[in-house]
Amino acid sequence: MGVMTTRRKIVRVRGNDAREHLDDVVVESPLAIAVGDTTLVTTMRTPGHDLELAAGWLVADAEVREAADIVGMGAFIADPDSADEVDTVRVALAPGVGLPEPRARLTSSACGVCSSRLLPDVPAPSGPLQSDGWTVKVEALLDLPDRMRERQRAFDRTGGLHAAAVVDSAGALVVVHEDVGRHNAVDKVIGHCLMAGGLPLTDCLIVVSGRASFEIVQKALAAGAAGIVAVSAPSSLAVDLARLHRLLLVGLARGSTLNVYSRPELVLQHAGRAIQQSGQQG
Amino acid sequence: MGVMTTRRKIVRVRGNDAREHLDDVVVESPLAIAVGDTTLVTTMRTPGHDLELAAGWLVADAEVREAADIVGMGAFIADPDSADEVDTVRVALAPGVGLPEPRARLTSSACGVCSSRLLPDVPAPSGPLQSDGWTVKVEALLDLPDRMRERQRAFDRTGGLHAAAVVDSAGALVVVHEDVGRHNAVDKVIGHCLMAGGLPLTDCLIVVSGRASFEIVQKALAAGAAGIVAVSAPSSLAVDLARLHRLLLVGLARGSTLNVYSRPELVLQHAGRAIQQSGQQG
Repeated sequence: MGVMTTRRKIVRVRGNDAREHLDDVVVESPLAIAVGDTTLVTTMRTPGHDLELAAGWLVADAEVREAADIVGMGAFIADPDSADEVDTVRVALAPGVGLPEPRARLTSSACGVCSSRLLPDVPAPSGPLQSDGWTVKVEALLDLPDRMRERQRAFDRTGGLHAAAVVDSAGALVVVHEDVGRHNAVDKVIGHCLMAGGLPLTDCLIVVSGRASFEIVQKALAAGAAGIVAVSAPSSLAVDLARLHRLLLVGLARGSTLNVYSRPELVLQHAGRAIQQSGQQG
Repeated sequence: MGVMTTRRKIVRVRGNDAREHLDDVVVESPLAIAVGDTTLVTTMRTPGHDLELAAGWLVADAEVREAADIVGMGAFIADPDSADEVDTVRVALAPGVGLPEPRARLTSSACGVCSSRLLPDVPAPSGPLQSDGWTVKVEALLDLPDRMRERQRAFDRTGGLHAAAVVDSAGALVVVHEDVGRHNAVDKVIGHCLMAGGLPLTDCLIVVSGRASFEIVQKALAAGAAGIVAVSAPSSLAVDLARLHRLLLVGLARGSTLNVYSRPELVLQHAGRAIQQSGQQG
């Protein structure tokens, strides 16, 4: 099976203490599900049990109902650069088993979508995400999830909503939106800023109530934001994409603790010192 | 703006106490984003700030970078049966602004995808989800999230994974899988059962670590499961789809409390009585 977790060197902040730490992050990478030569879907998933994933997806999205509906299935590494990571499951279905329309969720290339090509394919932000000398204090970051929650109108009633917010360069909450989908909440706050003439979001932060996935980092980069503050943990691909484009990525921001996954030199401690000097991150 | 929450009559179980309760649930409904006559994507979202949602989506997925890139935008009710609910945002882009390939995430019909037609369009399960007389005890339901967590190998290390499990008719945990995506974790456990010859999942439960969305209920129905036990809350559309096909839907299963959103007559209290008689649910 695939590797489900990997490690990244991060800076872990606990109250006044900030230190480097080799952290486990969940792996996120694309898997194409193909029948014959047709890729039906490309899903961002955690590697492991990829055949089960493809079979289960075909139950809900095709007309697969029993094992005999699948007459052959295999895991393939279509991308020679992908370091032995399965990127495609090819399935042969029994005659008469119905298929859905192909759904290309990600830009697809000749090889399907491979992790190694996914990162370079993400467009670079149109300019620097942070002004020269831009920094943010640990205390300011720690306050953000609570400040966002105070502005969530629907949350307390249902417990079923994600939220996203944009914080401007002065630390003010510009907008908070909620949605059943985390990605939709992020789209709503970015759309608000676009319509108000506020893009790119240079020196602004995007706060998200849940996990930081590849897709969320991609949206923040397209909007030109300085960084993301997530209440939960980021995936491997989110960390790697944030680092590639020098986006500040903070996760597990709860109470007096947070982790900095990318650009720790932008984060200042109580004494006004950066929690890490520039260029030290591994 | 749209209505973000709605109410459903549920049964709330708190220890030995079970009573009907008018509960707030988050609304989930489809929104098509169209440029000209082309629907680019249909996303399941919570109504409200739909123009912002469409604008923000176009920042990440098209080449929209400033307000002037959008020369017109409007919210439409394409489906006359949709009870004044916006189902489509139409956008006109300035000349030269690049567009992504259309991505049809849901089966689309002539009107786009409308809430009122989404539910009837979901295929019915191939047979009854529960055998005659099938019931489950409150205590058994309350144990499931903890039992699943004990089998989650990667979770404690990363904090970034969802999990799903299948519990057989005897209450045994058949399989647990983890993934960065909740829907992938559900696909993996259903795929496992398919490959083991275990579909349909009559009298079996699917446990999910997060929220229960429309898509998760759709997957459980396709697999023929008796019910879903979710650690977090379901959406309006998840509740409605579960009721339509008589799927047991339990949410917010934590400690000694849970909510039953669909089929409460299948859930037995300590004394062996159903928490609600059949047919009482509103």
